[in-house]
Amino acid sequence: MADYKLHCFAQSGHSYKAALMLALCGADWEPVFVDFFNGEGRTPEFRAINDMGECPVLVHGDVTLSQSGVMLDYLSKQFGKFGPKTEEEHREILRWVLFENHKLNSFQGIYRFMLNWAPEQARSEDVNRFMKGRSLGAMKVLDAHLATRDWIAADRATIADVACSGYLFYPREEFGWTEDDRFPNIEAWQERVKTLPGWQHPYDLMPGHPLGSNT
Amino acid sequence: MADYKLHCFAQSGHSYKAALMLALCGADWEPVFVDFFNGEGRTPEFRAINDMGECPVLVHGDVTLSQSGVMLDYLSKQFGKFGPKTEEEHREILRWVLFENHKLNSFQGIYRFMLNWAPEQARSEDVNRFMKGRSLGAMKVLDAHLATRDWIAADRATIADVACSGYLFYPREEFGWTEDDRFPNIEAWQERVKTLPGWQHPYDLMPGHPLGSNT
Repeated sequence: MADYKLHCFAQSGHSYKAALMLALCGADWEPVFVDFFNGEGRTPEFRAINDMGECPVLVHGDVTLSQSGVMLDYLSKQFGKFGPKTEEEHREILRWVLFENHKLNSFQGIYRFMLNWAPEQARSEDVNRFMKGRSLGAMKVLDAHLATRDWIAADRATIADVACSGYLFYPREEFGWTEDDRFPNIEAWQERVKTLPGWQHPYDLMPGHPLGSNT
Repeated sequence: MADYKLHCFAQSGHSYKAALMLALCGADWEPVFVDFFNGEGRTPEFRAINDMGECPVLVHGDVTLSQSGVMLDYLSKQFGKFGPKTEEEHREILRWVLFENHKLNSFQGIYRFMLNWAPEQARSEDVNRFMKGRSLGAMKVLDAHLATRDWIAADRATIADVACSGYLFYPREEFGWTEDDRFPNIEAWQERVKTLPGWQHPYDLMPGHPLGSNT
């Protein structure tokens, strides 16, 4: 049995943060597929492991964790990797983990869901436009931040970089972005993230997508 | 000059988390009014102190902080109050700080803004309905969590309670809630929060609202 079990599904950028961290740390882990699009997150069985009803959930021995930011903090301590070295770095990492939760991955995740997988009756042009605007606003903040640095919160890759990766490696067409929606500093940073040993694409790292290798 | 300066405005629930924490810690602090509704968050002067363009910003000596969750963590260490005692408490506190950022205060803040202060051309029934649904969903999660406990993350008040207070003490009518939108466990918890020494209403703690005492 693997040391770590990650309850997740391929399309979940919040799950990808934890899956990527496990991969980058070289952890002994395995994914457990959650059929989220068919309502598994609302079942009593799933609520029993996460009262917030969200993916991912990470199980390590008798420790069960929800919230990807908690997992990144926990794994950085378990493996002694990608964590802060000083209190100042701790604050800067936490700042970006909160930002990506609140603004970057939150809006991107909702927008992408509404665009691709929401039931017909729940779709709305207004909501999509609103979410796209919020999502692009957050991208602009991150792009400006990366204009003068290689990594988000320190002089090396940290869990802030893993956290902000959440939805950024999914195919552009899933976001309905036009050719004008370009973020050169984010794209350059993504190329650096891809060079980290162990990096894999979300569709290869987590189960449930027909195009992925882990299905 | 006060030890701490908090750049904020009365209607900002994200600012209220930091203002409430300063009040509960008995800090020597003063608010600096940010005219957010008139675009001050987008000015180069404000972006120079916070590249994310958000309120609040906390200044303490040569330390300048953005993201309310970072401030709560920082202040809990400065004052030795409302922080975790164990790693398990640390994880549980962080879990709720991330949840309130991502789901609770995020959706409540946007929904309330769109309902009350958004320019006419930006308003949309669809967006309001969507945000209200998301906001009530997050309230249900917190209400269920509080059914069996007095405080959110430990056997006493912690920064998780301060964080979740963000938008909850603003007048109900600002959220367009009906009489059916009741959360008895949250309401009972709010009464406990109010008994914490130093507690004050957001409109009294921060400047910029005509009904507040701090204008």
